[in-house]
Amino acid sequence: MKEIKSIAALAARFGMLPGVGRKTALRYAHAVIDLSEQEIEAFCAALKDVKSSVRLCSVCGNYTDSEVCDICAVRQSKKICVVSYPKDVTAIEQTGAFDGVYHVLHGTLSPMNNRTPDDLNIKSLMTRLDDVEEVIVATNPDVEGEATAVYLARLIKPLGIKVTRIAQGISMGSELEYADAVTLTQALGRRTEL
Amino acid sequence: MKEIKSIAALAARFGMLPGVGRKTALRYAHAVIDLSEQEIEAFCAALKDVKSSVRLCSVCGNYTDSEVCDICAVRQSKKICVVSYPKDVTAIEQTGAFDGVYHVLHGTLSPMNNRTPDDLNIKSLMTRLDDVEEVIVATNPDVEGEATAVYLARLIKPLGIKVTRIAQGISMGSELEYADAVTLTQALGRRTEL
Repeated sequence: MKEIKSIAALAARFGMLPGVGRKTALRYAHAVIDLSEQEIEAFCAALKDVKSSVRLCSVCGNYTDSEVCDICAVRQSKKICVVSYPKDVTAIEQTGAFDGVYHVLHGTLSPMNNRTPDDLNIKSLMTRLDDVEEVIVATNPDVEGEATAVYLARLIKPLGIKVTRIAQGISMGSELEYADAVTLTQALGRRTEL
Repeated sequence: MKEIKSIAALAARFGMLPGVGRKTALRYAHAVIDLSEQEIEAFCAALKDVKSSVRLCSVCGNYTDSEVCDICAVRQSKKICVVSYPKDVTAIEQTGAFDGVYHVLHGTLSPMNNRTPDDLNIKSLMTRLDDVEEVIVATNPDVEGEATAVYLARLIKPLGIKVTRIAQGISMGSELEYADAVTLTQALGRRTEL
């Protein structure tokens, strides 16, 4: 039995989402058949709306639907927390353990994948350091995240700014966005100077 | 920090898919931001296409994009395998262990949820039994699936037709669509008469 073309096509689309395998994609596609036409219209509208309305904060690089993100618009802080991706900002905000501002690199250094400092949102970070006391590097605790942290420390410490790293309470190789709030809070509390 | 409206809206849509929790939905929504506009257009087209092109086979109730599904169009068999959902047909077909035809109930009996025999695709099953030797009931091995199997046996056995149940090699409470091919094959091979 060959899979119905339109179901296979939709499953292929779902398969492009992170962590979605063949079986899960097919399960999602089957679930869509049971949605009403209104729900599917709304689904499409939501997909397009995200693409058209979301852009990057001109200050920190986080996702926003205006010029400057909610955090940069409201908070004044001498602490900048540097993360790899916008989802990491969400994860840290949910702990409530950090009241500073963020900077989103949109990636990590990776010689293997040809990602150099120029590919990351680092230049605009350097323009934000005038009145800053501490830069907390909260990249993932894996090889690329560590390399990025070391690179930033070498770049920023000579400016007389304290550079810290979130504590390795998070197990090596795991992903920051999936850490529970307690682990993330501890990692922020026990940050060590680089 | 409040989540950006359009991202939250899209995450809510993803949250309607089976097994997708809040964190996973948000992860999917973030992944959509990284898709190109062409990819999002294609995603929407695939969503709408599934809804407009997929209908139920007039013989067995399985999903199809024509009047009769691929299986009913090609196979002649005196064995009908009764399943709860179209995804279960896909699961059994992937084992290659069954060469008969199917009948999709689109649900199970559930007094708790007010699902009676009239809500299931049972009437059209009864019209298919003239030349049938065996009805294999392959509903999930849970309370509702068992109740449905017993109901069908009581209905069909008086007609002189053998009614069998797939073997309980599948662990109680699990879901048929996630069983591996070997387990499903064994369950088909060791089916017991009801």
